[in-house]
Amino acid sequence: MSETVTGFEVEDIRFPTSRQLDGSDAMNPDPDYSAAYLVIRTGTGAEGHGFCFTIGRGNDVMAAAIRSLRPYLIGRRAPRDAADLAALHHELTHDSQLRWLGPEKGVMHMAAGAVVNAAWDLAAKRAGLPVWEFLAAMSPEELVSLVDFRYLSDALTPDEALGILRAAAPGRRERADRLRATGYPAYTTSAGWLGYDDAKLVRLAKEAVAEGFEQIKLKVGESLADDLRRMRLAREAVGPSVRIAVDANQRWDVADAIRWMEALAPFDPHWIEEPTSPDDILGHAAVRAGQPVKVATGEHAANRVVFKQLLQAGAVDFVQIDAARVAGVNENLAILLLAAKFGVPVCPHAGGVGLCELVQHLAMFDYVAVSGSLEGRVIEYVDHLHEHFTHPAVVASGRYQAPAAPGFSARMHPESIAAHRYPDGPVWRPGTPGRTS
Amino acid sequence: MSETVTGFEVEDIRFPTSRQLDGSDAMNPDPDYSAAYLVIRTGTGAEGHGFCFTIGRGNDVMAAAIRSLRPYLIGRRAPRDAADLAALHHELTHDSQLRWLGPEKGVMHMAAGAVVNAAWDLAAKRAGLPVWEFLAAMSPEELVSLVDFRYLSDALTPDEALGILRAAAPGRRERADRLRATGYPAYTTSAGWLGYDDAKLVRLAKEAVAEGFEQIKLKVGESLADDLRRMRLAREAVGPSVRIAVDANQRWDVADAIRWMEALAPFDPHWIEEPTSPDDILGHAAVRAGQPVKVATGEHAANRVVFKQLLQAGAVDFVQIDAARVAGVNENLAILLLAAKFGVPVCPHAGGVGLCELVQHLAMFDYVAVSGSLEGRVIEYVDHLHEHFTHPAVVASGRYQAPAAPGFSARMHPESIAAHRYPDGPVWRPGTPGRTS
Repeated sequence: MSETVTGFEVEDIRFPTSRQLDGSDAMNPDPDYSAAYLVIRTGTGAEGHGFCFTIGRGNDVMAAAIRSLRPYLIGRRAPRDAADLAALHHELTHDSQLRWLGPEKGVMHMAAGAVVNAAWDLAAKRAGLPVWEFLAAMSPEELVSLVDFRYLSDALTPDEALGILRAAAPGRRERADRLRATGYPAYTTSAGWLGYDDAKLVRLAKEAVAEGFEQIKLKVGESLADDLRRMRLAREAVGPSVRIAVDANQRWDVADAIRWMEALAPFDPHWIEEPTSPDDILGHAAVRAGQPVKVATGEHAANRVVFKQLLQAGAVDFVQIDAARVAGVNENLAILLLAAKFGVPVCPHAGGVGLCELVQHLAMFDYVAVSGSLEGRVIEYVDHLHEHFTHPAVVASGRYQAPAAPGFSARMHPESIAAHRYPDGPVWRPGTPGRTS
Repeated sequence: MSETVTGFEVEDIRFPTSRQLDGSDAMNPDPDYSAAYLVIRTGTGAEGHGFCFTIGRGNDVMAAAIRSLRPYLIGRRAPRDAADLAALHHELTHDSQLRWLGPEKGVMHMAAGAVVNAAWDLAAKRAGLPVWEFLAAMSPEELVSLVDFRYLSDALTPDEALGILRAAAPGRRERADRLRATGYPAYTTSAGWLGYDDAKLVRLAKEAVAEGFEQIKLKVGESLADDLRRMRLAREAVGPSVRIAVDANQRWDVADAIRWMEALAPFDPHWIEEPTSPDDILGHAAVRAGQPVKVATGEHAANRVVFKQLLQAGAVDFVQIDAARVAGVNENLAILLLAAKFGVPVCPHAGGVGLCELVQHLAMFDYVAVSGSLEGRVIEYVDHLHEHFTHPAVVASGRYQAPAAPGFSARMHPESIAAHRYPDGPVWRPGTPGRTS
């Protein structure tokens, strides 16, 4: 019964994606998609998997940060339920000495998120449920107990959170059945990387529509002339009814964002994503007020306090959670509740390494037990690197299929880990074609 | 002439301050003041010293982050002037892959700050000037060239910054002379640590006044009854004319802060410092609007974008820069210019390990060449750990004496480094009295 954690292994895994300019955008010209990857193991061999996503350099720093949390896990009773998972999350984010390295932001906070998410993977597997169902099986009281309300009470109290969850309790079963039958809407970013030429953009945009996607996304922000041309080509390729979101990846100051989006507005962009610094709450509010296109952000928002303010300031039309940026499931639950309180739809960020795999669970849980709605909601999908996961996210006809396997879909194939280990895996050895760094 | 950097050494140094509860506050009950300490060395043996301050656990992660920046320095021409220092700062904070780990916050950002500050130490030594004079000898144009204005232009443009610096150019020499003659006002936090008993608080408060301090600071936030008693004792000890600031170290939500400060207001606190999350710009604005005591924050503000918003939102009466939290001298220059634009005084955070040594240079430069004023300005002073530095900060009659030695006052004694190296230095070996972790 009191099974303990006996193993805690961290790997620095990097994929040489810069060789094809996959993932290229206005701020990230040559990413090597990477994961600081954690496996926790119990005495009986049960495993929990979690990771931080990075884009190359610095993945070793993330791995060191995760390793620094080893003492919290080794010898600990393997987390099984809401109480265990609340306690672990609290200890990792409130360590008085480690807190100085954030607080609650950047490398140490993402490391805490990897450990928390690995614990959720372990606990959900033990319960025999995918994480979205494991969460949706918890009572409103258990869910509220998972959240750290510190710094939130001026926007959301535990009682208000309980009210939101209780209001969504009726119909949980029907919504879960609906997800299993028809999935959750997805949009694709695969067409729109900045490093792709016009012909590839048009071809991929048309393919996306043919595959059933009702929304695509283009990267913008490097050159307005290029963006106008690409946006026109994309609009011609997909027609008037498919939504085209655009994403500036933090490229602009406020005035730039307003000027640029006024110019792109005739092509009816669905949202402008990350127009400016992810820390700039007031800047996002000014961009939203200053031009006609809706504003989305959140993949780099450091924590629940930033999301709280984005909502308080009326700075966003869409909240873009990321499964591996904040302190794991617990903090994302806080953010889902904040978004529900303010009535703003959550459209998760994904892509990277394994972010689609993780975040689909959170969006599906949100639909079943928090917001109760699919309206205006869509999960990002990027068709890269899924083959390295034992239970990859599956998108068919433009919709994420509900995961059925127990856990968080976070487990990578051992062969993938061995091949991409940095710097000594075969992919990174001198002489490998395309090796750049 | 083209001397290059050939050495880059990082040490994990920790002081067992938790054994005496020095530095204890409402959020940090048992800190072990620590430094991830960097020495860069040129081929001719010139050195630059820089560091990140932490409070114990995680100092190894900071050290790993600094080490990850080694490739930027080794083989580089040793920085000499504004152009070199601007280029280094830009490269470290705009590395497209490392940026994912922040962006511009937390462990990676502080690591960039340590490297940037070490480069300033090196360059100032080569110029034969203390950093505050090295900065004050630069033209307004050179100073503006050091700043990264990305995300600032809605609050401060390069032209506005140039105007501020040009307006302060007359009188630079007189103000520098005045600093050399009479120093810069200090306040002391040494009396007010939360772990100290009442008798020690009263004794130290009286000693502070006798030593010439016109401001002291108490830690608050753990128990209102205790804070009322301690505030009363302190006010009785120092009399009505000495300022007593209070510091909650992020302990409260907004409503707590308002309630608590309304209760303490009859004792005339000079400011409430860090009432809530350092990320909560709107929360600080609400605290400032909701109770009568002035608001100070900034030691944990992650970057210039957060400071920009604190000023735009009217959230603070005092801007508390920290020399080792943001990306070094360059980013603090941006923050000094923002504060000057908004007319808000800068009262630096110090204490820790070496923070007094560093930040005095920035405050003195601010007086000479940016704000041109000492009004409402005071630098924190904590009388700990200065003996480990070869050129310690000197406070006499309640005023920081202007440093005269070339560089950033950042160099620690080799014996101090050897003794406190973690985990293998003699201070940390098993069997050392008071060893706790």
